Amino acid sequence: MSIAVYLPSEASTEDWCRMLRDLMPDWEVHPLQKVPDPAAVEYAVVWRPKTGCMTPFPNLKAIVSIGAGIDHVLADAELPQDVPIIRTVGTDLTQRMKEYVALHVLRHHRALPALQVSQAARKWAPVVVPPASGRRVGVMGLGNLGSAAASLLAAIGFDVVGWSRSPKEIAGVTTFAGDGGLAPFLAGTEILVCLLPLTDQTRGILNADTFNQLKRGACIINAARGPHLVDEDLIEVLASGQIEAATLDVFHIEPLPSDHPFWDNPKITITPHVASLIDAPTGSRIIARNLRTFAETGTVADVADARRGY
Amino acid sequence: MSIAVYLPSEASTEDWCRMLRDLMPDWEVHPLQKVPDPAAVEYAVVWRPKTGCMTPFPNLKAIVSIGAGIDHVLADAELPQDVPIIRTVGTDLTQRMKEYVALHVLRHHRALPALQVSQAARKWAPVVVPPASGRRVGVMGLGNLGSAAASLLAAIGFDVVGWSRSPKEIAGVTTFAGDGGLAPFLAGTEILVCLLPLTDQTRGILNADTFNQLKRGACIINAARGPHLVDEDLIEVLASGQIEAATLDVFHIEPLPSDHPFWDNPKITITPHVASLIDAPTGSRIIARNLRTFAETGTVADVADARRGY
Ligand SMILES: NC(=O)c1ccc[n+]([C@@H]2O[C@H](COP(=O)([O-])OP(=O)(O)OC[C@H]3O[C@@H](n4cnc5c(N)ncnc54)[C@H](OP(=O)(O)O)[C@@H]3O)[C@@H](O)[C@H]2O)c1
Ligand SMILES: NC(=O)c1ccc[n+]([C@@H]2O[C@H](COP(=O)([O-])OP(=O)(O)OC[C@H]3O[C@@H](n4cnc5c(N)ncnc54)[C@H](OP(=O)(O)O)[C@@H]3O)[C@@H](O)[C@H]2O)c1
Repeated sequence: MSIAVYLPSEASTEDWCRMLRDLMPDWEVHPLQKVPDPAAVEYAVVWRPKTGCMTPFPNLKAIVSIGAGIDHVLADAELPQDVPIIRTVGTDLTQRMKEYVALHVLRHHRALPALQVSQAARKWAPVVVPPASGRRVGVMGLGNLGSAAASLLAAIGFDVVGWSRSPKEIAGVTTFAGDGGLAPFLAGTEILVCLLPLTDQTRGILNADTFNQLKRGACIINAARGPHLVDEDLIEVLASGQIEAATLDVFHIEPLPSDHPFWDNPKITITPHVASLIDAPTGSRIIARNLRTFAETGTVADVADARRGY
Repeated sequence: MSIAVYLPSEASTEDWCRMLRDLMPDWEVHPLQKVPDPAAVEYAVVWRPKTGCMTPFPNLKAIVSIGAGIDHVLADAELPQDVPIIRTVGTDLTQRMKEYVALHVLRHHRALPALQVSQAARKWAPVVVPPASGRRVGVMGLGNLGSAAASLLAAIGFDVVGWSRSPKEIAGVTTFAGDGGLAPFLAGTEILVCLLPLTDQTRGILNADTFNQLKRGACIINAARGPHLVDEDLIEVLASGQIEAATLDVFHIEPLPSDHPFWDNPKITITPHVASLIDAPTGSRIIARNLRTFAETGTVADVADARRGY
C-alpha cells in the first residue's frame, strides 16, 4: 500500500510523512513530489493540493483531506473523477472550534473591544450588556462543528438559532433549514457565526443582503472559509454601522496579503486560520485509522459527498 | 416598615428608591440622607456606605448589601454590631460572572492577546495552543460564583481545580480545601481565577508567593475585589515572565486612578468592575423578596456570616 503526501510547506510534508510512517510501518509513505512509483500510489493525503497534482497517479483509491473541508481538494479542475474524498474530523477538531466560537461570541457579547478602547484611553467606562439569554446567536451550518458550537453556546446561556440544509434537532437550539429558512434564521440574530462548508451554494453567502437582515449592530464571526464572505460588502456594512464588528479566521487568500484593508480596520479582528488547527500527531492518528478502515472495507464514515460539495 | 437607601451616586440612589417603592408600595422608601424619621428605619439597602452612615438609625433590623460581597459594609468601623447583613445574589449575577470568567479564561487560553499584537503589525502568525483539556484552570473560592464558573469551565473542557475553606464536591472539578490545600491547588495551575470574598484571611492573597507557585507563564484573572491583589507584586512577576498576563476587573481604588501603572501595562487587561453587574430591575426584585421574607420570618437564606466576613 503506497501513500503520497502533499502540503504546501515541504517541512510539514516531511513531518506528516514521518508520522504516518510511524503509525503505518507496513505502508509506503512518500512526499507526493518524490514518489518513486506513481502507479503504486493508492492514497493521497493532501492539504491545498496544486491543480493537476493528482494526475500522475492512475490507481488512486481515495484522497484524504487533511481537514474537515474538501473545498481545497475540489478546487483542482483536473481532479480525477469518482475518487472518494475522505475528510479528517474528530473530537479534537470539534473541541478547538467550540472554544474558538465560545471565545469570540462572548467577546462581542460582553463588548470587550469597546472596553479595550477605553483602557487605551485610561477611561473607566462600564458598558451594560444583557445576560446571554437576551442575546440571539445564529450558527450557519449544523454539521460536526456547527452543532457542537451551537450546543456549547446554549449551555453558556445564549438564545441560539441554527441553520442547515436538511432539518436538524439540537437540544436548546431553535433550528431552521433550507433556503426558505434563511430569512427567519437571520431575523433577530445579533451574533452570526459561519460554520458552513464552502460550496457553490454557500460561496459569498456572507454578503450585504444577509447582513442587512440581521439586527442593527450585529457582529459576524467567520470561522469557515474566506470565500463565504464578500469582503467589500463587509467593509461597507461596518462603515454604515449595520454591522458593529467582525472576527475573521479565514480569507480569500491566506496568509492575508499585508496590504489588505482588513488588517487595520478597527472593527475587524483577524486570527490567522487558527480556529481549529489539527495538530499533526492527532491528525495523523485519525488519518491512519481511516485509511486502514477504507483499505479493509472499501469505505469509511468520513467519506464526503463530492456531488453536494461537502 | 421603612427602608433607607444609599449608593455613592445620588441618581442611582433615586433609581433604586423608585424601583423599591414600585415593588413594595406598602413600605416607606427614602434616600438614606433624606430619611424623615430615623427611628422608624428598620432596613438599610446600601452599596459602599460611608463610615458612620448607619449610626442615625437605632432600630435597624437588617442591612442589605446591593451585591454579593459584604466587605464594603464591614469596612464601616462604626457599623452597628449584631445587625444581620443580607447579601444580594441570584441566577442573573451568577450567569454574568460565568460569562466573564469563560470569556477571559478562553482569551488567555487561546492566546488572543498575542494574535492581536500580530494583527497590529500586519503579521500572519498562527499560535499553537493545547486543547482545553491540556490547560489547568484554578478557581479560588467555590461559593455561588466560583462553583458556577468552575462548572462551566469544566463543561467547556478545561482541566479545572478549585479551592475553598471547607471541602466541596463539584462534578468535573478537582477540589482542595483550607490553608493546607492551597499549595497543591496552585501547583500546575496555568490560569488562576479569583472569586473569593474579601476578608482578613484573603486580603493580599494574590501575591508574589502565590504567583511563584503557579506554572511559569500563568495568567491571572481577578474578578473578586481589588485588595485581594498586591499590585506591586503583580507588576514584578509580569516583568519577570513568571506571570504572562492578567485580567483585572476590580481595584484597590475604583475608578482606577488615571495615573495608575496598570492602565498601560501591555500585559494587563482592565475591565471597569463589570464582571457581574446587578442591574437595578433584577437586583431590586431580589432585594424586595429578601426583605419581605426577613420581615415575616426574621431571617433569609442570604444572610451573611459577619464573623467569618462573608
Ligand atoms: N477555520 C478553521 O480552522 C476550520 C477548521 C475546520 C473546518 N473549517 C470549516 O468548517 C466547515 C464545516 O465543517 P463541518 O465538519 O462542521 O462540516 P459538515 O459536518 O459537513 O457540516 C456542514 C453543515 O453545513 C450545512 N450546509 C451545507 N450546505 C448548506 C447550504 N447550502 N445551506 C444550508 N446549510 C448547508 C450542512 O447541512 P446538512 O446537515 O443538512 O448536511 C451541515 O449542517 C468545513 O467545511 C471547513 O470549511 C474551518
Ligand atoms: N467583579 C464583580 O463584578 C463581582 C460581582 C459579584 C461578586 N464579586 C465578588 O465575588 C465574591 C464571591 O462571591 P460569592 O457569592 O461566590 O461568595 P460566597 O458564596 O460567599 O463564596 C465564597 C467562597 O470563598 C471561599 N472562601 C472564603 N474564605 C476563604 C478562605 N480564607 N480560604 C479559602 N476559601 C475561602 C468560601 O469557602 P466555603 O465554601 O468553605 O465557605 C466559598 O467557597 C464576593 O465576595 C465579591 O467580592 C465580584
